[in-house]
Amino acid sequence: MSPNAEIICVGTELLLGEILNTNSQFLGQELARLGIPHYYQTVVGDNLVRLQQAIAIACQRSSLIIFTGGLGPTPDDLTTDAIATFFQAPLVERPEIIADIQQKFAHSPHALSANNRKQALLPQGADILPNETGSAPGLIWEPRPGLTLLIFPGVPSEMQDMWCKTVVPYLKKQGWGDAQIYSRVLRFFGIPESNLAEKVAPVFDLIDPTVAPYAIDGEARLRISTRAASEAEAAAIIAPIEQQIRQQCGVDCYGADADTLASVVGQRLLERQETIAVAESCTGGGIGQRLTAIPGSSGYFVGSLVAYANNIKVDLLGVKSKTLDEAGSVSAAVAEQMAEGVRSQFGSAWGLSTTGIAGPGGGTPEKPVGLVYVGLAGPQGPPQSWSYQINALPGRDWIRKISTSRALDVLRRQLL
Amino acid sequence: MSPNAEIICVGTELLLGEILNTNSQFLGQELARLGIPHYYQTVVGDNLVRLQQAIAIACQRSSLIIFTGGLGPTPDDLTTDAIATFFQAPLVERPEIIADIQQKFAHSPHALSANNRKQALLPQGADILPNETGSAPGLIWEPRPGLTLLIFPGVPSEMQDMWCKTVVPYLKKQGWGDAQIYSRVLRFFGIPESNLAEKVAPVFDLIDPTVAPYAIDGEARLRISTRAASEAEAAAIIAPIEQQIRQQCGVDCYGADADTLASVVGQRLLERQETIAVAESCTGGGIGQRLTAIPGSSGYFVGSLVAYANNIKVDLLGVKSKTLDEAGSVSAAVAEQMAEGVRSQFGSAWGLSTTGIAGPGGGTPEKPVGLVYVGLAGPQGPPQSWSYQINALPGRDWIRKISTSRALDVLRRQLL
Repeated sequence: MSPNAEIICVGTELLLGEILNTNSQFLGQELARLGIPHYYQTVVGDNLVRLQQAIAIACQRSSLIIFTGGLGPTPDDLTTDAIATFFQAPLVERPEIIADIQQKFAHSPHALSANNRKQALLPQGADILPNETGSAPGLIWEPRPGLTLLIFPGVPSEMQDMWCKTVVPYLKKQGWGDAQIYSRVLRFFGIPESNLAEKVAPVFDLIDPTVAPYAIDGEARLRISTRAASEAEAAAIIAPIEQQIRQQCGVDCYGADADTLASVVGQRLLERQETIAVAESCTGGGIGQRLTAIPGSSGYFVGSLVAYANNIKVDLLGVKSKTLDEAGSVSAAVAEQMAEGVRSQFGSAWGLSTTGIAGPGGGTPEKPVGLVYVGLAGPQGPPQSWSYQINALPGRDWIRKISTSRALDVLRRQLL
Repeated sequence: MSPNAEIICVGTELLLGEILNTNSQFLGQELARLGIPHYYQTVVGDNLVRLQQAIAIACQRSSLIIFTGGLGPTPDDLTTDAIATFFQAPLVERPEIIADIQQKFAHSPHALSANNRKQALLPQGADILPNETGSAPGLIWEPRPGLTLLIFPGVPSEMQDMWCKTVVPYLKKQGWGDAQIYSRVLRFFGIPESNLAEKVAPVFDLIDPTVAPYAIDGEARLRISTRAASEAEAAAIIAPIEQQIRQQCGVDCYGADADTLASVVGQRLLERQETIAVAESCTGGGIGQRLTAIPGSSGYFVGSLVAYANNIKVDLLGVKSKTLDEAGSVSAAVAEQMAEGVRSQFGSAWGLSTTGIAGPGGGTPEKPVGLVYVGLAGPQGPPQSWSYQINALPGRDWIRKISTSRALDVLRRQLL
């Protein structure tokens, strides 16, 4: 069997949909980065029999199995039990784990729980995978030749810390990740996935690099991938195709990889040495939150004002009461006055605004749920506005999210 | 085999971690709500052989298999092919699908893509699962007695719409979901999961209802579950245990089920007929965004001001320059002045503020990354502040998220 990895996430809360499986995403990204092939992910509940069945299937098709979850201090945490039973290894108490947990709890206002002692039991022959930020240690175990198990707690921050500090060096030492897969993801806003796919269709027939389309959060994306021995070698294969796609798609392609609409806008503002202030209504703070998610955003983001109540639009943004009465708060004129008002109040080069109907209530035949106006005031000329009818079906969160993206995209296109 | 469901999500982008698997979460919640047992979730890439292997495994252990993804218009969308090949059914073009897609594209600025025609091919004997909000229809198919396949596109909004409109009525008609599992999730803030688990330990031994703990986003939760024929029957079983847990845990339990810190705060403000305005620094708009995520929040949320630049703190919130110079922008005094300033500027009953160091840069030995002050000004007495040292290891997003929760929790406790 050629070396390949598989992820098994353990937890009834995942099956019940109470939490999102962010661990699979993180591990998938990491395995891709390291060039470790990875073909399956499984989620299984806190059930000893089914957990063992999942292990049996995974052993037959994968040589590296990564578990998350079920290592906690509570009685339904069964991962260690299941693995030890499946490979017929006795559980042995490790005093160094007890000592470590006791030390971690020494400065805590919360006492060491009796349940925590369970976390000191490991299958004979397994190594401790240290957990510096939580109580449950993980384990690294080769229960038989050619099969490696990595077992992590389910808490994402702990798992990620353990992965980076201990597991990545371990995997490299074991010879995993010699020829990594390098991917570049091109990001698009303002063009549907199927139209993008048709526009660039011939690239999907390429063998190296491969190009694949997908859609997420109202954005279309193209992933360009190749397996290479170094980043430079990969870049030489990927760059010409990226250039070709960018030429075909123009301004609809807003960036690549970790770029976001907010980071691209921020980069342009830094280059132009200009600042931005935001006046939000229906997006409720989302534009400010996305802009300030970027480290260093204080270099161009001055601040924002969420003017939810109409009197705040008048008192703090200078929107005219007459305009509110005549055009309504969801209107092009109000969006423009909000943009101009926040620009003047905050003394920024640009003022960006949103006003719309996020629902579920408040829609009318003339102004249905999903109608959003984006206003923009800049250093030159009068303020402008754009209107969008966003698909209302997915609900309030979707409308707010896409409105936020639309506003950032309006600004992005103006800054080009 | 007793009836049980399994989820197979198809897409290399999921394996590569490029998108979060929200479809599994939604389907898990829905299956739980309908009382359909569901023991496994699998993710597999856009690969015909491995997709068929995943189908082979699922057929052996589940009687209802739900697929998402791989129905799109692009060449790497293989789900229909894989299923038809596995069950040896020919693909047949359905003219009604072509007609439907043509009609959907009639009013679009984007032309019907040739790729879209591929979406009209269905295995012989399968029924069309209508997709009102996107181009790719799904399918419902019983390829052999006792095995039902439901196949959805991967776009979450389309899948959810199709699930609710067509599949839920279909499943009920087929006799799925007679005795539903009813769960109630109690939500806690301010107590770690292991301490909560120790405090309420005896409830984990209960047979009916069952109680299980888990942790997410800095919150601990307890899920109380029972299988019952009606909601009233379930409530009678769950309520006494809920009451017992709430008595033991007091104010650390902030709500249940769909409650969030923001919704609970909103509910209390509505009851008290009081309003809130927010001044944010390190949280960058997150508090406003969470408060306005609640429909009807305009009943108590007046607005917020993100004062990122120091001069905005002075000019628009009335923070004293002297205080900024002497105590620094991340300080108890500035948090209090921000809270009082926004309360007075916006004319609200309460003013809530945050100022802190979200990182990755900007930390010092005295004021490390993760230090956050929450300020609160209310109708009575002088403004107060609270400081928190948030675990900086998970990074900027985590610090901002937990700071937002801390601020909402401060307000929640004051409103009790």
